[in-house]
Amino acid sequence: MFKNHCIFCNEIVRNRKASVIYESDKVLAFMDNAPVEPGHALVIPKEHYENILDIDYETYLEVHRVTKALSPPIIRAVSAEGINIGQNNGACANQKVFHYHVHIIPRFPDRELKWGRRIALDHELDRVAARIREEIQNHDGDIPVLK
Amino acid sequence: MFKNHCIFCNEIVRNRKASVIYESDKVLAFMDNAPVEPGHALVIPKEHYENILDIDYETYLEVHRVTKALSPPIIRAVSAEGINIGQNNGACANQKVFHYHVHIIPRFPDRELKWGRRIALDHELDRVAARIREEIQNHDGDIPVLK
Repeated sequence: MFKNHCIFCNEIVRNRKASVIYESDKVLAFMDNAPVEPGHALVIPKEHYENILDIDYETYLEVHRVTKALSPPIIRAVSAEGINIGQNNGACANQKVFHYHVHIIPRFPDRELKWGRRIALDHELDRVAARIREEIQNHDGDIPVLK
Repeated sequence: MFKNHCIFCNEIVRNRKASVIYESDKVLAFMDNAPVEPGHALVIPKEHYENILDIDYETYLEVHRVTKALSPPIIRAVSAEGINIGQNNGACANQKVFHYHVHIIPRFPDRELKWGRRIALDHELDRVAARIREEIQNHDGDIPVLK
């Protein structure tokens, strides 16, 4: 389903106004334009689902399969040593866009664990997305070391 | 694999020192003993995996299938109107127990969205776990309403 008033359906899925890092039949992954840390990516279903309650299992599991698959290349691309996976459901749980999405947030040992957002410039997002796509292509199966 | 020095392998999987809400061949779900909000549950694989990088896909997807399945009964049991799903990897991402686990954190519209923990009494955890198990058994397939 496509939802006319959904910013992800319109701007991301239809018009690709995003720095895309991965795409399959069911799923899109792209850079969050207000990242908590560099490399902050979102994984979404192309069809519109609001949250963990209404998304069907097949689509949900594909979103989460892609989330795991993208974690090593994202970690390598930004030299992270940790990663938070987060998914919010409902306004009172801080969901801002009501189209199911999973946050992948890289973390670094020398930085405070904060959740504040910062609007990023398109060219910054494109640069990190290019590094991540390169890591996806070059991925050798090694597991990155976390700290 | 069982890891001798892992608190989840020893205390939860082996000795069941937890208020368990769900169990399958591969997965255990139980109340977090330092909940962010009432109803805060954890879903873990019974085998030891450290994080999203080393867990195999079959086990990982089963943990996440159970996470989705438990969300409606948890929401109903504590009358929540939102839910955060979180999963931390690496010390710098605030991972405290190095056995893969997914947090299910109910949220409420009249309360601050905080992440602070509070040690809960066993009988409090047992009581909410009993309510959740009841909701799992009585689940009629209706999707709870989030706010």
